[in-house]
Amino acid sequence: MLTRSQINHIKQLSDKKYRDEVGEFVIEGEKLVREALLSRFNVKQILVHEHSKLELDSLDSSKIHFLKQSELNSISNWQTPQPIMAVLEKNTSTVPEPNGFHFVLDKIQDPGNVGTIIRIADWFGIESMYCSPDTADVFNSKVIQASMGSIFRVQCIVTDVLSLLSQYPTIPKYAAVLHGISLAQVNPSSKGFLLLGNESKGLRDELIELADHRITIPAKGKAESLNVAVATGIICYHLLS
Amino acid sequence: MLTRSQINHIKQLSDKKYRDEVGEFVIEGEKLVREALLSRFNVKQILVHEHSKLELDSLDSSKIHFLKQSELNSISNWQTPQPIMAVLEKNTSTVPEPNGFHFVLDKIQDPGNVGTIIRIADWFGIESMYCSPDTADVFNSKVIQASMGSIFRVQCIVTDVLSLLSQYPTIPKYAAVLHGISLAQVNPSSKGFLLLGNESKGLRDELIELADHRITIPAKGKAESLNVAVATGIICYHLLS
Repeated sequence: MLTRSQINHIKQLSDKKYRDEVGEFVIEGEKLVREALLSRFNVKQILVHEHSKLELDSLDSSKIHFLKQSELNSISNWQTPQPIMAVLEKNTSTVPEPNGFHFVLDKIQDPGNVGTIIRIADWFGIESMYCSPDTADVFNSKVIQASMGSIFRVQCIVTDVLSLLSQYPTIPKYAAVLHGISLAQVNPSSKGFLLLGNESKGLRDELIELADHRITIPAKGKAESLNVAVATGIICYHLLS
Repeated sequence: MLTRSQINHIKQLSDKKYRDEVGEFVIEGEKLVREALLSRFNVKQILVHEHSKLELDSLDSSKIHFLKQSELNSISNWQTPQPIMAVLEKNTSTVPEPNGFHFVLDKIQDPGNVGTIIRIADWFGIESMYCSPDTADVFNSKVIQASMGSIFRVQCIVTDVLSLLSQYPTIPKYAAVLHGISLAQVNPSSKGFLLLGNESKGLRDELIELADHRITIPAKGKAESLNVAVATGIICYHLLS
C-alpha cells in the first residue's frame, strides 16, 4: 500500500519540472519494468495491480506495492494503463567524454522522434547521445515508450551542445541539413558527432557552422523533407555500416 | 454558414466506417489545404474561422464556409484546432498496375508510422503503395498529419496484398524481416515490392514465403528491432540510391 501523498508524488512525475526536481521518473508495462531491473537505473518502487496475475516471484518483494485500478489509472500516462509500473531514479552523472559515434539533438520536440532516435542509437551500438535543454525530455513517458527499452541502454546527457562541440575540434561533425553534399559522398566513420535539428526549423546556424560535413539524403520525389528519425537511421546505416 | 446537420456530417468523418461509407475525409491547417487544392483530390468544402486573418483571395469562394470557434473545435481532431480545414473527396480508382518500386504494408497499425512511410515514399519518388485492409486508414487525421502533405502525391490502395503479389510472380519482392540476409548483400533495384509488416508481429508467414529476398538491416547494438518507418527509409536508401 502507498499513502495518498506517495501516490500524489508519483502522479506529479508526469511533469518535467517535478521530475527534474526530485530526480525520478515512471515507466509502464511489464517488458519495460523487467528491462529496467537489469539496467544501470535504480528501481525505487514497483507498482502492481492488486488483482494482477503477473509472475512476481523474480521481483524484489520489498519494492512491490499493490495498487487499486483507480490508483493506477490516476498515475498512468497511457490510455489503457498496464497492471505494472515502476518508479526509477534518474542517473545523475557528469557529462562523459565522447568516445565513439554520438548523436547531438538540437531542439527535437516530438517525444516520439526522440524515443525513436534513442532506439536507433541502441540498434547501431551508439552508447551515448547529447541533447540540448530544449529537446523533449528523455524521461517523458512518450519518449520512453517510443524508445522500446533502449532508454535503459543509451545514455542521454542534457547539456549545452554548442559548447560541448566546441571542446572537441578534432572529432568530425556531421550536420544533417536539407541542402548539403550527398550522403553517398561521405566516407564511413566510427567516430564523430551526428548533429540533428528541430523538426521544422532544422539545426541552428551556429551548429551548422561548426560541422565539418553538411550532409543531405538525396531526394527523388517531391516531399520537402524526411522525418528526423528516418533521416537519422539512413545516415547511421551509411556512416556506421 | 453550414447547417447543424452539415457540421454533424463533418464531425462523423473522424470515424473510418463513416469515411468509407460517404467517401470523404477532413484535412486541417493552411499548408495542407493549399497543397490539397493543387492535388488530384476534389476539395468539397473549405472551412474557415469566422475571424480568421488568412489570405483567402486565391481560394474558390463558392467552397468557403465561415465557422465559429466552437464549431471548428467540434470538428477538429487536433488539440489546438487550426483556423482552416477542408473536406475532400477520396479518389475511388481501380487498383493500378505496378510500374516501378512500391511499398506493401501488412497490418501496420500506428497512424504515425503509416504517415511517415507515405512521406518516405514521396521523398524517394515512389508513386503508389498498397495497404492491407487491417493497416491504419490513410485518411485518418494522424496519418495525414504525419505524411506532411505527401498523402496528396502518393497513391495508397487498400487491397488484399497477398493476392495482389501472387499476380506478379516476376516482379522482385523484398521482405523486411529480423533474421534475413544483410541489406548490404542485396543489389539496388528500381522495380519491386518492399513488404513491410506489423510493428510487433512483423510480416505474415504467407507474405514472407512469397518474397525473393528476406532482408535485415545489420544491428551492432542491443535493440530488438528498428521502428518500421526507420527501416523503410534505410532500405529505400540502399535499394533506390
